[in-house]
Amino acid sequence: MEHDVDDQEVLAANRAFYAAFEAGDMDAMSDVWEHTERVVCTHPGWSTLRGWASVASSWFALFHNGQHLQFIVTAEQATVAGDVAWVTCDENILAGDGASGGTVAALNLFVREGAGAWRLVGHHGSPVAPAT
Amino acid sequence: MEHDVDDQEVLAANRAFYAAFEAGDMDAMSDVWEHTERVVCTHPGWSTLRGWASVASSWFALFHNGQHLQFIVTAEQATVAGDVAWVTCDENILAGDGASGGTVAALNLFVREGAGAWRLVGHHGSPVAPAT
Repeated sequence: MEHDVDDQEVLAANRAFYAAFEAGDMDAMSDVWEHTERVVCTHPGWSTLRGWASVASSWFALFHNGQHLQFIVTAEQATVAGDVAWVTCDENILAGDGASGGTVAALNLFVREGAGAWRLVGHHGSPVAPAT
Repeated sequence: MEHDVDDQEVLAANRAFYAAFEAGDMDAMSDVWEHTERVVCTHPGWSTLRGWASVASSWFALFHNGQHLQFIVTAEQATVAGDVAWVTCDENILAGDGASGGTVAALNLFVREGAGAWRLVGHHGSPVAPAT
């Protein structure tokens, strides 16, 4: 049962990440992440960013470029291993007219703080090529 | 110092993964991975594969499609958190004539077994768009 509780906590942290992302809310995004040098973030098509300063700058830039993304997150699967957890999910992006704007496959990595909160330490998103 | 030893062990496991990849050696690739349902693998442009059976099938297919990849792995950075570790690195792919064939940004996730060996439980690779 404890395992289930952990999974639910991690999935809640994952949802908080996507809520901040969709809202373009820099304060909420800042709360989601661990503020350390060890965090890593790879946006689709980007090189890997390392350290909270670089990662925070990238979200700030994304939130201020006028692009507002909406998506439906599906296929969430959480795995907890001690105080580390990873979630895989699909970010199904909605285009402005509600049509499909493609899918991004994501791997999100969380670490449990001493106080029990799960913080994001890694995000890797990559575009899924359309089926041919 | 122990932290450094852990980092070195994880980087060695990461190198074993790329050695198996370059050699197209299914036995070596099988040794690198944990054989469980919780493993995840996202090849560039692919949807996320879950579970060792699916992941193993994908490597078998990649190794038997006649495509032989060679690459230079750079920017390896390992972080150890208890019995879980993650490595980010760049896979700089060499084209047949030795020219650059593009770069894949990778996030590799390892878990330490009871016996002390690090096994791969997650691989996510995505193409880095050329700088414009």
